[in-house]
Parts: sequence; C-alpha cells; structure tokens
Amino acid sequence: MTTLEEDLEDAAAAPRGAGAVHPGVRRARAWLSRAVEPGTVDLWRYVEEVGPVEAVRRLRAGSAPAGIRSLVGARVAEDATLPDLRRAEACGARLVVPEDGEWPAYQLHALTVAVADEPLVRRDQSKRTQALVPPMALWVRGPARLDELTERSVAVVGARASSAYGEHVAGELGHQLGERGWTVVSGGAFGIDGAAHRGALAAEAPTIAVLACGVDRSYPAGNGALFHRIAEDGLLVSEWPPGCAPLRHRFLVRNRLIAALTRGTVVVEAAARSGAQATAHRAQKLGRPVMVVPGPVTSALSVGCHELLRDEHVGAVLVTTAAQVIEAVGRIGDDLAPPIERPGSPRDGLSDVAARVLDACPVRTGVSPERLARSAGCDVLDVLRVLPSLELAQLVEWTGTGWRLAPPPKPPGAAA
Amino acid sequence: MTTLEEDLEDAAAAPRGAGAVHPGVRRARAWLSRAVEPGTVDLWRYVEEVGPVEAVRRLRAGSAPAGIRSLVGARVAEDATLPDLRRAEACGARLVVPEDGEWPAYQLHALTVAVADEPLVRRDQSKRTQALVPPMALWVRGPARLDELTERSVAVVGARASSAYGEHVAGELGHQLGERGWTVVSGGAFGIDGAAHRGALAAEAPTIAVLACGVDRSYPAGNGALFHRIAEDGLLVSEWPPGCAPLRHRFLVRNRLIAALTRGTVVVEAAARSGAQATAHRAQKLGRPVMVVPGPVTSALSVGCHELLRDEHVGAVLVTTAAQVIEAVGRIGDDLAPPIERPGSPRDGLSDVAARVLDACPVRTGVSPERLARSAGCDVLDVLRVLPSLELAQLVEWTGTGWRLAPPPKPPGAAA
Repeated sequence: MTTLEEDLEDAAAAPRGAGAVHPGVRRARAWLSRAVEPGTVDLWRYVEEVGPVEAVRRLRAGSAPAGIRSLVGARVAEDATLPDLRRAEACGARLVVPEDGEWPAYQLHALTVAVADEPLVRRDQSKRTQALVPPMALWVRGPARLDELTERSVAVVGARASSAYGEHVAGELGHQLGERGWTVVSGGAFGIDGAAHRGALAAEAPTIAVLACGVDRSYPAGNGALFHRIAEDGLLVSEWPPGCAPLRHRFLVRNRLIAALTRGTVVVEAAARSGAQATAHRAQKLGRPVMVVPGPVTSALSVGCHELLRDEHVGAVLVTTAAQVIEAVGRIGDDLAPPIERPGSPRDGLSDVAARVLDACPVRTGVSPERLARSAGCDVLDVLRVLPSLELAQLVEWTGTGWRLAPPPKPPGAAA
Repeated sequence: MTTLEEDLEDAAAAPRGAGAVHPGVRRARAWLSRAVEPGTVDLWRYVEEVGPVEAVRRLRAGSAPAGIRSLVGARVAEDATLPDLRRAEACGARLVVPEDGEWPAYQLHALTVAVADEPLVRRDQSKRTQALVPPMALWVRGPARLDELTERSVAVVGARASSAYGEHVAGELGHQLGERGWTVVSGGAFGIDGAAHRGALAAEAPTIAVLACGVDRSYPAGNGALFHRIAEDGLLVSEWPPGCAPLRHRFLVRNRLIAALTRGTVVVEAAARSGAQATAHRAQKLGRPVMVVPGPVTSALSVGCHELLRDEHVGAVLVTTAAQVIEAVGRIGDDLAPPIERPGSPRDGLSDVAARVLDACPVRTGVSPERLARSAGCDVLDVLRVLPSLELAQLVEWTGTGWRLAPPPKPPGAAA
C-alpha cells in the first residue's frame, strides 16, 4: 500500500498520455473530491493550471497559494482516498476523472465555457451554490458508460411533495423517453424525480440519478430499492465520495450537474422558490432548452412551472408529451413531434354559401330552393349550385317535396 | 309609417353632420344587417364608398353593381326593418350604427385596418367566417353605453363542455376582473363563457355577451336567466337583427367581434380545433394580446390552450391570475401584476461558509469548532467567524460543551 505522496510522486514522474490513467492522478482527484466542496471556482482553476497531481502535492506541502490553501482549510491533513476508493469498489462504483475516456466531456464542456465568465476576484464570483463549475471528478456506480448514457439524455425534475397528477405525468414522460432511447436523468428524490426514474425503468431503459451524497448511500432511504434498480442498468452519479452525507447546500451544487449532463431540462411540478426552478435556471444559463409541463393554475405545485413559462428571460418551452420534449432537444428534422390530431368534419371543406345553405335546411319538412335562398341570404342559382355537393356529402336529402338535413351517419357496427 | 324608400330619400336629402343620426340612416343599416350576412368584405366596402343610404337605394333599385347585388340575392325584395326595430324596442334593445356617438370606434378601428389587407378580387379574399370585417351595425340590448363598457374590457372565452376546473378559473377571473373595473366580454355560451359572465355579475360588474343570434333570443335556452341578468346592467350585443337564429356559421363570424371589442382575449379551456382558439387567432391578427390559462396536460380540454401557448406565431402569454391578465392588457406602469410571494427562510442570506457550517452542526450533541471546520471543509477561523451570526439568527446554539442546531422556532400562538 503506497502513501498518497508516493503515488503522486510516481504520477508526476510518469510519461504523459501513456494510455490508461495513472493511479496517482485518480488518487489526486479522489483526494480533491473530499478535500474541497464541489463548485469552488478558484480550486477548479488552480487544478486546471497546475494539474491535479501537482495541485494536491502543493496543497499537502503547504506551498500552494494562501487563497487556495484556505479553501481546503482543516481537511488538508486528512487522506481518506484509499478507504474511499475501496468503499466505492465494494458497492460496484468507480471514480471517473476528466482524464478518462468515459468522462462526459462533450456535455460538460458547457460548464468549462461558463466558468470562464466568473471574475478573477473571489469576492465578485457567483456564490458556490450557483457557480457553474465543472466537477473535479465523478463517483459513478453502475455498469453503463457515463459518456454514452448521457449522450441522448434529458433531465426530468420537479417537486418532492408532488401531486398524483405530477407523478403520473413524470412517469409517463420517463417511460416514453426511455422507450425512444433517451436517458432520463434526475435527482433520485421522492416525488417527480422518483416517478421519472421509475417510468424509465418500466420501459427497461437505463436512467441516471445524480445524488448529493455518496453513491453508496440511500437518500432518501425510502428510495433504496429504486437506487438498487438504477445501479443495475443505469448509473448513480455523485461529486461526493462514498459515505458523504446529503447536506442541504450540496443539493443546490448538485443541480448544475443535472442540467449540464443533459441536452435539456423538463420541469414537471415545481412550487414557487423550488430546487427544480433552480435546475431550470442552470440549464438556461448553459444554453440548454428549458421545458415545462403546465398544470392547473389552482395547484401550488404548478406555480413554479407557470412562473418559468411566464419568464421571458428563461425562454422556457411548454411541453405536454415526450414527443414534444424530444422535438425540443433532438436533432432538427429527426425528432419532430407529430401534430396533435384534430377530429375532422364533413363541413370543413364547405364554401361559405354551401355552409349557409346547409344551416338553412330544416331538420324535418323539406323546403324549396327559393326558401333556402331567402334563409341563407343568397341567389336561388347559388342554392341550386351547392345542393348537389351537399347531397353527395350526405349532409342534405330530397324528401320528394323539398330539401332537409340528412340524418347523421350511423356509427360503424350499429344495428341497421 | 313611412316606407323604406321614403325614409332613404329623406335621409339622402338631409344635411350632413346635423347632430342626431337621421332615422333613414339607421333604417338603411337595419336593412343591411338583415339583407347580407356580416363578414362580407365587398358589401362593407361598397357601403363605405357610397354610404349606407345610397347603398340600400341602389340595391333596392337594382342599380348596384352585379357583384354587390349577388351578395343580397333573394333577400333584396324583403323589408323587415320596421318590425325589426319594433322588436328591438320591445325587448329594450336599440340599433347602434357607426354614425352614433356610442359606436365603439376606437376598438373597432383594428377591423377597419385589417379589412384593408383583403384583396380586391373576391376569389382571393379570406373566407367570410375568417375575414376581419367591421360590423355594419350592432343590435345592443341593455342600459350601458357600448363604447364606455368596451373601453377597459377583456374577452374570456373557452369550451362549452368545460370542466369544473375551467369553470372555477373562468368564474374567478370574471369576478376579479369585474372587481377591478374591467368588463368581461364573452359569447354567452354554456361552460367557460357562462362562468366568466357569472363571475363578473357576482362582483356586481357589468358584462357583455356577444351573441350569434338576435338579442331577443335566448340561446342556449338554459342561459335565459343569465341573459336577463346581463341585460339589466351590462349588454347583449349582436350583428344579427332580433329573431335571427344562432346558425353554426354565425358563431365563427361572431368570434371576430369578441376579439375586436376587447383589449385582449383570455382562453381558459379549449379543446383542439375549438372556437376559442379561433377567437384567439382573430385577436392575434388584430394585434391584441392573447392570454391563455394552462391546465393539466392530461385534460383534453386544455389541449387547445397548450397548443396556443406552444405556437410561436401566436405569441400567447400564459396567465394564472386576473392581475396577470390586467398586466398584459393594461397601461404599462399602472397595471403591473404583483410578484408571486415566496416563503422566506433565515437561510436565504447565509454565505457559502455559513451554510456549510450550519449543515455541519449536529442535532443533539454539541461539537467543537475544530470538528465543524473539518465537516464543513473550511478553516477553524472561518467557523469562529460565522458562528456568532448563526447564533444571532437562532439557527445554532451553544450547549456548554459544543455547538449544535437550534430547535426550530415555535409557531406564533403555540403553547410555551
């Protein structure tokens, strides 16, 4: 068993780009993932600048800049990397790092672009819970490849204390997205999140839960069986090492990942001032489509949804079906939603005069074309011109003495 | 009793602009309102060109152009003007003509502008049911002035076969709009229309029903009592003379008037391919705001609403309250909707470090600042810096041996 420092030294001396990721690099990122809360702009920049191995070496040696050292604070002397990696292995998880081929670099590129907008001075930067910073590494549990599963993925998020309506819609969306080969990404919470995951699983489609705690923990505990099923085909993903607790501030930080890993975010039910709204705002800032399922205006659980739809700055799209979701996030042309079918009527093609003559026809006693002309407000010649086509369409009939409305057609299968 | 021709001759000879409208002018427009179905572009243009009196004289004498004569057809020889005017008077109605001061010229100007876009050749013109043509005259029943009531008015329209949800929302909107001095205009139908009218009446506010039949008729019959109440304070309005039947094609023609008379149209519930959608499209073409109340995506009665909200061409605004409706149609600055209130939390103002320290505090046994620093991932000095403010905010407390979370505050009025 090597110490952290030995591993780092070994990694620093190893030739670059030599195929597999050096264990020291992975161990450095494992250390960073526990030492500093995710979402910290300055640490991410420092690691980008000097590399993960050198960053950890300098932090441990006390030679990193004071501003960076203060980010780690009291955790600097601790090293739980080996227990963390072992604990991950024990639950079928692994640490995916940016140096891996599996890293979802394409999707997460939006965070790299966004973090460039953060000011240099820490005082002026976004709050950590809102900053759009790429993750340092991702703890991933499950058999699927993270980059492949997120390639065609949609976030479906919403209230924990959801209504039966919201759960039904989230479940349907999850199911239909799964059926069409799209990965549902959500937060594994009660309510909308869980319903979306379950819908996808019911379609035998892999789904991803992005957690605010270690991937070996079941939070909420009531979703333990759900997490177990997700880990069988899909993925549990977290920025925090195994064992970490789901602290409140972590959920806000986690939300940016749900938005970043997917092509767009669907909000199904959201109260005012909700985490789902926060995720939607992250998606909008990352340039990803924000889609919102409306609900009854009498429901407090749809207030957040309707606020998003009214906010011109967000530019959210109202969606009612999975097809409309796919149209919003899919490739143009490939994934167009079919138009809603409307019932047709034989009246649709009628000219103005024909419609008026038809409306002028009585239900019972037939009347003369002259009387029809007066009622309809047109010439007798007009009436005589349109009657044949109305008769052909079985809208009117000749009684022997005059014209009247034809009885409506019998439904197919009715007794003669 | 003078004949139609005598009255017309008298009106033609009378000096122009001499105060009150000459009875011959009113009689000419009464004749036109029965002779030709409203929405006919060419007739409206002919009357604009030669005036109503001359138009009727030439039509009756057979000297009008053949294209115009064919519009009147078999009705040209009839004259029901005196019975129509008498019948109107008998039910407390009157014929309001563009020459009257009461004519809602300001609102209807949008139709005059829109009809100018219709091609000259009849073949190329919009179907009569869709053409945006000003009315020839309006039969009006009720004590209020039409121009005054429509000045601050909103159309509230929707499905006849509405749900309890839709009726509740329409009634609330009607009530709140009425309370704030806005006139609710609708079509007097079952369902949403009726609920909106009733809501306005419950606020003791006048409301306007624009009908597709004579103002002396109750269609639907089940709304007879409603029409009676509307006519007491508000107005029943129709383009068709008393006694006219509510023929199907007339509803479509009528819809443009609902859109034109108001500052904007709110759709509460609408199935796919519905009249309410048609009214919304008329409003959009007239440059008036289209507002839509969303509903459950599982409801067939909200499909039309959601389609309107998804149609970028319509540019509809999602609304959930009367205040939001007024914001959309009111004067900028005067009528801004108040922001939705969000519940506040003492956590809102916390810095990142303070939130992390708070999350690190245990519920029961107090712990040392050093341990908090390790859990929160910061320096001990940071912990010591933020603890006093967390204590002041009653979020944490000192147990004598360490820091822990403070119990949540008791709700006001709870037993000590």
